[in-house]
Amino acid sequence: MTKIGVVLSGCGFLDGAEIHEAVLTLLALDRAGAQAVCMAPRLTQRSVVDHATGKETAETRSVLAESARIARGSVRALEDVRASELDGIVLPGGYGAAKNLCDFAWQGAQAQVHPPLAALLRELHAAQKPIGAWCIAPAVLAAVFRDQGLRLTIGCDPGTAAALQQMGAVPVTKAVTEACVDERHRIVTVPAYMYDARIHEVARGIDEGVRELLRLAALLRS
Amino acid sequence: MTKIGVVLSGCGFLDGAEIHEAVLTLLALDRAGAQAVCMAPRLTQRSVVDHATGKETAETRSVLAESARIARGSVRALEDVRASELDGIVLPGGYGAAKNLCDFAWQGAQAQVHPPLAALLRELHAAQKPIGAWCIAPAVLAAVFRDQGLRLTIGCDPGTAAALQQMGAVPVTKAVTEACVDERHRIVTVPAYMYDARIHEVARGIDEGVRELLRLAALLRS
Repeated sequence: MTKIGVVLSGCGFLDGAEIHEAVLTLLALDRAGAQAVCMAPRLTQRSVVDHATGKETAETRSVLAESARIARGSVRALEDVRASELDGIVLPGGYGAAKNLCDFAWQGAQAQVHPPLAALLRELHAAQKPIGAWCIAPAVLAAVFRDQGLRLTIGCDPGTAAALQQMGAVPVTKAVTEACVDERHRIVTVPAYMYDARIHEVARGIDEGVRELLRLAALLRS
Repeated sequence: MTKIGVVLSGCGFLDGAEIHEAVLTLLALDRAGAQAVCMAPRLTQRSVVDHATGKETAETRSVLAESARIARGSVRALEDVRASELDGIVLPGGYGAAKNLCDFAWQGAQAQVHPPLAALLRELHAAQKPIGAWCIAPAVLAAVFRDQGLRLTIGCDPGTAAALQQMGAVPVTKAVTEACVDERHRIVTVPAYMYDARIHEVARGIDEGVRELLRLAALLRS
């Protein structure tokens, strides 16, 4: 059974993983007969946001414990996951990718990625295992693989696209229902909620992204 | 456009709304061209559970603010929603339905339902508008419509089925991919994660439940 890591970054688009994108990813993987290995960093969230008001609160929350809400309890500390256990990996979006997995939300092109995640992604990439990233999460890949000319979606925000270019990536415009495949780097990205889209459109894009990710994983196994 | 209320009860299956069930409901409604009106009670959660460990914590969380994570910010206080605004309503499951929408988790057959929700459900029922409930949420309907012989799914837990019978409902066994339709009461239920099921199976059941709910809503409009 193909095992795909799903990197969560909390639970809620303003301070954690984008819930719809994460659930739609689990659905697409399960429908395709792949096994999702949910994981999240052992970190304290860099922010907690009241999603009803959009305002920061003074709470302290664990990225791992909040991610476990999406994973229904089945979540591993990503620091304990080895690249050899996985056939590929995917990072759903949400501000958690830019706030907890790295500090892109504050540092832009100078972003630093949580070192154990950077190491895991480098090891997977070196083993030619495919990597997927949705929504804002391609920024994590641009920060890990600097100046390597990754071709990545990032939606329609000019500032974000400019930051990716500063990191030596190539922003590629795709519709919400489309995936961008960088065959050379085995990287699949979809814009998802970088657009003000409807959930059924985001689902189509993620279905396409997962299909491409599993195609690349199958190439490696054949 | 058909408007269906989606009653959330927090964010996470151990103390709030079951996230997969809620997202799959939003997806099915959107795919069918219906508009979801997400709502949640203005209440403090009756419990907060660390989903990584399964243990209760001492935190205080708002049902409305946590529900807003699933709704991506677009959530209304259910106390402000009128039955006349909706063509139907659905309650996804998760312990939040049994802990926050009512106290079934502790009181069983003596459960009391949050009065504004009970009033909204009674008004919708009186107007012959369809009501859906997934997973454990049929217990809320059994408590609101006592001794009316509602035919409801509840999964395979004998204690839960016995409590529903005590409230005068009729538990009906259905597979995870099937829906139970009580045509007389215009109530649609699916077992979802009452079974130890895979997400793609739960999605099939919810797709079926939403299809039946929208069929009943269309009957009323024709």
